[in-house]
Amino acid sequence: MNINAPRGTQDILPGTSEKWQYVEKQLADLCRRYHYKEIRTPIFEHTELFQRGVGDSTDIVQKEMYTFEDRGGRSVTLRPEGTASVVRSYVQNKVYGLPNQPTKYYYMGPMFRYERPQQGRMRQFVQFGIEALGSDDPAIDAEVLSLALNSYKELGLQSVKLVLNSLGDQESREAHRQALIKHFDPHREELCSDCQIRLDQNPLRVLDCKKDRDHPAMEAAPSILEYLNDYSKDYFERVKQYLDVMGIDYEIDPNLVRGLDYYNHTAFEIMSEAEGFGAITTLSGGGRYTGLVKEVGGPETSGIGFAMSIERLLMALEAEGVVLPVDEGLECFIVALGEQAERAVIKLTDELRRAGIQVDKDYLGKKMKAQFKAADRLGSKYVLVLGEQELENGVINVKDMTTGDQKEVALDSVIDYMKEELTGGE
Amino acid sequence: MNINAPRGTQDILPGTSEKWQYVEKQLADLCRRYHYKEIRTPIFEHTELFQRGVGDSTDIVQKEMYTFEDRGGRSVTLRPEGTASVVRSYVQNKVYGLPNQPTKYYYMGPMFRYERPQQGRMRQFVQFGIEALGSDDPAIDAEVLSLALNSYKELGLQSVKLVLNSLGDQESREAHRQALIKHFDPHREELCSDCQIRLDQNPLRVLDCKKDRDHPAMEAAPSILEYLNDYSKDYFERVKQYLDVMGIDYEIDPNLVRGLDYYNHTAFEIMSEAEGFGAITTLSGGGRYTGLVKEVGGPETSGIGFAMSIERLLMALEAEGVVLPVDEGLECFIVALGEQAERAVIKLTDELRRAGIQVDKDYLGKKMKAQFKAADRLGSKYVLVLGEQELENGVINVKDMTTGDQKEVALDSVIDYMKEELTGGE
Repeated sequence: MNINAPRGTQDILPGTSEKWQYVEKQLADLCRRYHYKEIRTPIFEHTELFQRGVGDSTDIVQKEMYTFEDRGGRSVTLRPEGTASVVRSYVQNKVYGLPNQPTKYYYMGPMFRYERPQQGRMRQFVQFGIEALGSDDPAIDAEVLSLALNSYKELGLQSVKLVLNSLGDQESREAHRQALIKHFDPHREELCSDCQIRLDQNPLRVLDCKKDRDHPAMEAAPSILEYLNDYSKDYFERVKQYLDVMGIDYEIDPNLVRGLDYYNHTAFEIMSEAEGFGAITTLSGGGRYTGLVKEVGGPETSGIGFAMSIERLLMALEAEGVVLPVDEGLECFIVALGEQAERAVIKLTDELRRAGIQVDKDYLGKKMKAQFKAADRLGSKYVLVLGEQELENGVINVKDMTTGDQKEVALDSVIDYMKEELTGGE
Repeated sequence: MNINAPRGTQDILPGTSEKWQYVEKQLADLCRRYHYKEIRTPIFEHTELFQRGVGDSTDIVQKEMYTFEDRGGRSVTLRPEGTASVVRSYVQNKVYGLPNQPTKYYYMGPMFRYERPQQGRMRQFVQFGIEALGSDDPAIDAEVLSLALNSYKELGLQSVKLVLNSLGDQESREAHRQALIKHFDPHREELCSDCQIRLDQNPLRVLDCKKDRDHPAMEAAPSILEYLNDYSKDYFERVKQYLDVMGIDYEIDPNLVRGLDYYNHTAFEIMSEAEGFGAITTLSGGGRYTGLVKEVGGPETSGIGFAMSIERLLMALEAEGVVLPVDEGLECFIVALGEQAERAVIKLTDELRRAGIQVDKDYLGKKMKAQFKAADRLGSKYVLVLGEQELENGVINVKDMTTGDQKEVALDSVIDYMKEELTGGE
């Protein structure tokens, strides 16, 4: 009987894994330049962390978590996102007390949500994200926005845009909340049942509703931007000013909201405008938050972060026809003819590999012709042939598969020769 | 209330994560040269896979798995090791039917076992491993042994040794099994209760017993090596011959056994002999197997692989005092004095980063002196200072923190200047 991978998960095989490696390497280098350092947190956490850190009322916590009891009877959950774990680690390791602040982290790894699998939405998916904790400077918001956008642009994506909003501070949000209730209350009975509840609990989320999006009251709904107090207005102005200074284009969308109370000030999304990208055009999102560190047991500290799905990034690259510079070829294939030669080839293979050269050989007892065919299929740049005669003469035949040139090289200098060939004399 | 990471898991923070990155990069490059390509399989699989692939009677499956029902009511398990998943993927994706055989994979990622956490044994740990599927050539056994050993040696470990055995083929194992039963049966009552069961089910594992290890019958127990048939003997000889050819030292230990029926021929471990490494001296293990691909639903195919824990590798590096060449410093810190300068610095910071240079700045509104202190603590190689006066003159002050040299550089050429400085004119 066959056993398959669980629904909503996938195997990443050679041919594709090189693309992942390339993207991850580029993102890690981007973070190096922005001076964000890698943090790795566990795959699962105590369930309580996500109930508090993601929010008990969210769809994620209500419907989508992989929650179970470990053998010791404690409830644990496969992480559905990265921020809660990073904040937990920041508090547990008392990082807020260290001298170098703000603390700038990046993370990259699998996350888990039990959703209906569809194109671009897997139950196990990989997130890359950053968090900057411990600064209220609008300049760091601009830095995060720049990094977020560059993570797409540097990989070659053209049709991405930054959509921006401000949610203001607590005071501004409260004023807006009251205005929203006042605005929607006369239409309460016309809204969907979810929105009727939202109107009491979190009216901001009414603006996000897919069912009620065409209700006439939507268009005239009060915008958060009209309710920003002076501090929040100034904060937002400075973020925009810094983006202008960096030459970063953006679009303001006052309906870009985030459900949780933690979020304040800067909120943003990166969208793809590529044709043929399909229905899901949001590539990633992020924003500023406060209260989260305190909720998890640390001192009042604000942060800002963003997260993207690598799966969706790869889809966007494909939609735009971006070809990543990934080399799937092989540097060197060695053919042995005869038992004596086989032993010498095993030795040489090992020596070449230790000298930094990529080498493969036959392990199926194939005839010479079939070995050449294998070398060809593997895209080998060079094929080396060692027969009994060559072995006796202390030489080996080196064929450059690009030019077709063949050359006899002394066995005891073939490592240097191949190094020279492969680096082009660099 | 504080929420901590689950017991047996850990956060890997900056200062340590660089070491992980370095080790993983080196191992990936080693695999590149040996032409093993990366495969990524899901974090969890259907529980049945491990029951079959690891073995229902093993401690792992019996006691140590993180098994739970997903929201659809299917039993899934966090992977306790890598081989079963790789083989499942090989079968599910029909890789055995592709032209380039053997299939050579490497993997790297978290694995999960619910054990008592102790030094070098975590409930979530990271395994690096390889699998070569589809060849019965002893040369590939030698290749795997070479890669396994070099993964330690190339990182700078000196005190590692390769311990080797052959478990023979089915016929040899059966002959040995009968001899073991005959040998131990007269002592049955003197053995521990576990071994009395093992004697009937899998007498090979009696040799592995920690309780009975000093029983007089142990020393005189028949060795598998005396029961190898001609094919198995020849296979083992050729593996050893190839190791000799490559100049790889090894030790034969006829008591090195593996419990599962899948294993045959080559079995090995890499041990640390470093002083002060503590009780756990086995760094990794591996061996040849057959029947596993068939068990998971594929055609009869044999394979060979090995796996190591990265945690234990890092412990071994520490025990031997190996210092990894990891740079935790910063290339460039920019100090802004005044509001005008701040905007110019934000622009310059962004430009330098996009030009490949690692830059950070202050985000806490610190005074100049405190900013210099921060730059120093971050180990910044260069500190750039921009005041209102410099901005007016179109220059910036560049200080080389290694030499103490200071220089005024034109703002519009500072990117090229810094590139030149940081690459040393390469």
